[in-house]
Order: sequence, then structure tokens, then C-alpha cells
Amino acid sequence: MEMCKIMCRGYRFAGVHCGLKAAPKLDLGVIMSDRSAAAAALFTTNRFPAAPVIAGRRQLAAGGPVRLVVVNSGNANACTGEEGIAAVRRIAAAAGAVFDVPAAAVFVGSTGVIGEPLPVARLESGLPAAREALAEDGLDAFSRAIMTTDSHPKVAAGMVEIAGHRVGVLGIAKGAGMIEPHMATMLAYLLTDADVASPRLDPLLRRVAANSFNRITVDGDTSTNDTVLLLANGASGCRPETAAELALLEAELERVAGELARMIVADGEGATKTVTVAVRGAADAADAERVARTVSRSLLVKTAWFGEDANWGRIIAAVGNAGVAVEPAAVRIFLDDVLVVDGGRRAPDYREEDGTMVFRRPAYTVAVEIGAGPGTFSVLAADLSYDYVRINADYRT
Amino acid sequence: MEMCKIMCRGYRFAGVHCGLKAAPKLDLGVIMSDRSAAAAALFTTNRFPAAPVIAGRRQLAAGGPVRLVVVNSGNANACTGEEGIAAVRRIAAAAGAVFDVPAAAVFVGSTGVIGEPLPVARLESGLPAAREALAEDGLDAFSRAIMTTDSHPKVAAGMVEIAGHRVGVLGIAKGAGMIEPHMATMLAYLLTDADVASPRLDPLLRRVAANSFNRITVDGDTSTNDTVLLLANGASGCRPETAAELALLEAELERVAGELARMIVADGEGATKTVTVAVRGAADAADAERVARTVSRSLLVKTAWFGEDANWGRIIAAVGNAGVAVEPAAVRIFLDDVLVVDGGRRAPDYREEDGTMVFRRPAYTVAVEIGAGPGTFSVLAADLSYDYVRINADYRT
Repeated sequence: MEMCKIMCRGYRFAGVHCGLKAAPKLDLGVIMSDRSAAAAALFTTNRFPAAPVIAGRRQLAAGGPVRLVVVNSGNANACTGEEGIAAVRRIAAAAGAVFDVPAAAVFVGSTGVIGEPLPVARLESGLPAAREALAEDGLDAFSRAIMTTDSHPKVAAGMVEIAGHRVGVLGIAKGAGMIEPHMATMLAYLLTDADVASPRLDPLLRRVAANSFNRITVDGDTSTNDTVLLLANGASGCRPETAAELALLEAELERVAGELARMIVADGEGATKTVTVAVRGAADAADAERVARTVSRSLLVKTAWFGEDANWGRIIAAVGNAGVAVEPAAVRIFLDDVLVVDGGRRAPDYREEDGTMVFRRPAYTVAVEIGAGPGTFSVLAADLSYDYVRINADYRT
Repeated sequence: MEMCKIMCRGYRFAGVHCGLKAAPKLDLGVIMSDRSAAAAALFTTNRFPAAPVIAGRRQLAAGGPVRLVVVNSGNANACTGEEGIAAVRRIAAAAGAVFDVPAAAVFVGSTGVIGEPLPVARLESGLPAAREALAEDGLDAFSRAIMTTDSHPKVAAGMVEIAGHRVGVLGIAKGAGMIEPHMATMLAYLLTDADVASPRLDPLLRRVAANSFNRITVDGDTSTNDTVLLLANGASGCRPETAAELALLEAELERVAGELARMIVADGEGATKTVTVAVRGAADAADAERVARTVSRSLLVKTAWFGEDANWGRIIAAVGNAGVAVEPAAVRIFLDDVLVVDGGRRAPDYREEDGTMVFRRPAYTVAVEIGAGPGTFSVLAADLSYDYVRINADYRT
């Protein structure tokens, strides 16, 4: 964590227990920027957006910069109606007062159970302790405070030199279920100390998310609370101006976001495998995406991954279910570098033990070649294990 | 089974062991009609149709009536290329010779592992024993011979009086995984002794399947081998002619098919619950179907069913992910007769224990009201249990 302190200037963090989860679990996290930060955000496409998503959208649409991020775990404040929105407003006001920033500059996030009223008073009671705990090395506590079924915190950092300045990039995310983000993931916070104005941040964040968070799946469910927030506070003194300079920053952000996305999949509920489903040669990217998502969502494929059973018949059956025109005779499937299917059937030289060897690896690639055009897409997916069922059958009990 | 002998005349059945599965498991089933039967069939929409599906489509397109149905389990003859098609032809020829019927009147089906060459010689070796075993009360053996991971055979029968004749209807099906049929289910055989010509059978079968097999899901995967075959051999001496007479037959076929569909879900791999997801008030039927399918496929919803956790937040999150315009304030959700969600949030009078009571039942209905129009659709779905994962992680080992 020491590295992050150096690399991304002007941010401090805290994570405390405020009573939304059983003590002593951390359940309230805060990020404070020492100056006004330009912000961009992406939110869930779920038609039942949680209250903090509704409020956050309005806030970002109003263009307001951000000074403070307040996030609770243990309760999603989703499907809570007008009271839920009022709760977000009350938290922003209370946090603004405690941290001495305008309420309009407080960005609120929530994660946890859907449909329960958020106990705002408990959250408020934790704010003074969070202020006291605020520190550059509070990152670990913050990243733990936003966890739900995550087994470990998810932090990634980077550094890039732009126009003679060292620019820091820092990302914090949580998983671990209801993960197939569309436009964002469960919760992710990307910070940079570069100085980039909001109108430039927004398209940059869209591209970064499209290549990272929007290409992962744990269980195919898109959460009500998905949010990815990007802040740029300019504390590095660096203001990328040219397209080339912005591209450097974007590349580093994409690397950090990709790392977080990979962590989310690897720590997906019950996950034991991280599998890249890479589709090539589809008619176009949309077809490639359909195939990649269908394979990576198939329960039969995901249980075969868990069982380390190189049952390629299930993979090809899923390819055939993607709603995409596919010519079986043109299809090839590789497990890492092992050719399993050629011309829609078992490759002549394929030996079961070679496929099994790949499936025993903790991470590997299932590459599907369609032979119809230039379209490519890949998805990073988790397997489906006993523990996924255990975790989700017992989640609230 | 005695009833069926009386009710559906002119059919005999057999089930024997031919060596595709470990002895003494039955793995070869035969249905013989004592006269030429008009046939209609629906097949999988999977883009990798198995060899018997390809051959069966051609056979039915040629309009040929059916005398004999030959089905093996233990091997799906899918993704087996031209050799697979040749294998189907060889089986039809061999069975034609043994049972003394034209090869063109033999309808072949397969179910089991995808991608392995079908050991035709073993199958052929079982045909004489099957001929010897052929009997009106061979139905139980037949229904067992086509099982894969099914825990019990699935047979449903009915009788309807049409124009003074007693007409029998009999159905046999298998599940139990890779179940979300589109146009058909894994394997189902519907028999009647009514006399109905093929051109009239076909639209009738489409409607029957649309209201039964095409409204169930176990794991959301559509198999390469889905086939539903309907035979009408006229042995009852009844030839329904008027629309009213045909409607009587169709209603009875739909009842039998619906019963089989329910059995498939109840015996879905690892299934402990049978849940009807009924969507009402969508803008149209297509929107209602999207919502019903999204809820019934959601892993988080299915594990909550298994865990008997009335976690309605997951249901509403799935509704929000269906890609359908939904106004949260108009949404209501019932668990059987318990109102859980009203106006997109927890109903004021809802008590957790009432929801839990419903979720403890082996079968119940999750009704989702969208409040946008007249569209309705319902899906019969299984839950997702440890055993689903166990069965599918270990299927081939």
C-alpha cells in the first residue's frame, strides 16, 4: 500500500465500523480528495437502479466536482423508493458537515442486501470516526469496508509519466456476486492525480470500462448498484492536454481497471477458475460478444470448468445457442494452445489428457474461432462451484 | 402402465441393454407402431444440431410416415460430422431389417455425451433383443432406456372421447440437464391412436410444444439433440375432422405434454423446487417472455429458491435486467398469494415469515406484474442446488 501513497497524490482514505454489519466488520468507507476533483461515472443498466445510483446520476449530470466519496456495505439502499433517495441526501448533508465540504461534492455509494431500508442514523454515527481515521495509508481499511461476499480487498495501482510528470492511478473495487456489469461493475473507484476536466474524463471512462469491467461475468446477473467512479484531482500538477498524453493516462487507467476486473472474477463467489472466453472470426464484434457471453454464462460450461472436465461438447453446444449464425464446419476451439474442435467436431489429434491438463490450470483461455469474419470479443469468467450455491443459498441467514 | 395399454392402441415398446452404458443399464429403446403412423416433429434450434436431428429433419421434410422409433442413451451422436449422419442411416437400415419395416420409416434419436463417435455396432447388436422384448407393456423399459441423468422415467397418458371414439394419448420424455428447450425438449415422444394426417399434425404439435416444453427451464442451456416427435397411427379408428374434434385432441395432447414438461423440471438435475414464474401486465407477450426467462435463469434467484430464502431483491433485480422497459412504481410481485413488492418496493404489510412459508413449499408461483399492458407469459423453472453442480462437475467421470 506504501506505493499507492506515493503514486496517487491528494487522496486520503478511511474504513470504520458503523453498525450496518456485525461488529467489528468494517462497513463504512470514505475517500477524500484534498482538492476538488473532476468526476465521471458509469452506472448500472438495471431498470431498478438503487437510490445512490439515481442520486449519483443526477449529481454527475449536474457536472458537480467531487471532494468526498462515502460508501457503506451491508445494505444496498435499493428498491427503497423516495425514502432511499432522501437517505442519500441526508448522508451527503451529514458527511458534508463532518468533513467540512459542500454536500453537493459528496458522492454516496451503497452495497449489500436489496430492499431493506437503510439505517441512516447508524451510518451517520460512524462519520466522525471516519474523519478521524482519514489517512493516506487508510486505503486498506477503505477497500475492506466496501466488501460484501468478497474474500479479500481489491486494489490496483499504476504510474505513468506524462509530459515529465509522474501521474498516479489507483483503483479500488468490490465483487463478488451479481456480477455481469453493463456499463460498470458492482462498485469501483478509480482515482488519478492528473488534472483532467470532466468532459474529457467521461468518454475516457466509457472506453476503459468497456475494455475491463464490462467484459467480466461471475453469475450473469447485473446488480442494481453497479457504479464505477473516476476522480481526477490534479494533485500531480500534470494536466494531460494532447491526445497522446491523454492516451497514456487512458492506457494506465485501463491497465488498473483490467487488473481490478480480473480480481473481481478470481474472487467471484465460490470461484476456483478464471477463464478467458475469446471469440475470433465472428461476422462482427456484436456476434462475437453474443457467443462469448453465452459460453461464459452457460451453467454446464461453468460446472465443467469447476469439475476440471474438458467437456468441449458443452462449449460447442453453448456456441450453438448464442443466436448467431454459425457454420459448424468452420468452427475451431482451442483450450489454451490445444486444438480440441476442428470443423465443428473433435480434432483428429486431440487427446483428452491434453484438454484435462489445461482445465487443471487455475486460469486459461477457451478460444472459439467462428470463421465468418473479423469480429472478436472476449469475456473473463468464473466457474460455478458448490461454494457459489452455498454462499447464495445462505446469503441472508 | 396398464392404463396406457388400453388407452393408446397399436403401439408396442421395448428397452434393452446394448452396451453404450455400463451393464445392466438400459440404453436402447424402441417404439413400434403396428401400422404406418403420420408424424410431426420439432427439433432443437441449437446451431450444432446432432446427427439424428439433421437426419430426422430431412426424414420429416420428405413427409415419410413412421413405423419404428429407435433411441439410444449414453451417446448423443452430436458434433460427429458426416460419420454421425452415416451412423443414423446405418441404424435405420439395420433396424428396418430386424423389425421388418422400411428403413425410411425408422426414426432415430440419441442422447448422452456430445462429441464421441457413436459405437453403431453395439447398438445394432441390441436390436434383436429389442425386437424380442417388444410388448404393449414394454413402456416402462422404453422410458428407462432413454434416461441420462434423469432420476426416474417420465410417462404421461390421457384419453379423450372424440365423435364417439375413445382416443388415447401417451407421452414419454427424458430430461434432465441442458434444458431450456426452444422448439422442443431434450427428447419427448407423443403418441396417439387417432387418425390425423401429417399436415394437420404439424401446426398442432407446434402449439402444444409452445405451451408446454418451450416454457420450462432447468439450466438455460438448449441441447444439440432436442426432439419432440408426435405419431398418430389411427388404431383407435377415430379420424378427427372438424376443428372442434381436432381441438379436443390438441387439448389432451397439451395436457399430457404439460405433465411431461412439469416432470422434466421437477426431475431437473439437482432440482428441489418447481417454481412457476408468471409474468402479467407486460407491454406484450414478447416482453413478458423476456422477463419470465430472465428471472427463471438468474443464478441468484435460483439459489435463493434452493436456500428457501425469500430474497425478493434478487427477483426484482432480475426483472430489471430483462432488457424490458419497466416502471418500478408500477411493479408488484406475489409469492403465491403473498404480496411482497408493491410499487417497486417492499409491500407495507409484507412480513418476511409469510414469504419464507411460501419458499418452503416444493412448488409455488412467483408472479410479477409489470403494469404496462396485456402481455403474459409463464415459465416453469427448477432451482439451483449443490447437486446440480455435483452432477455436472462429475458428469463424465
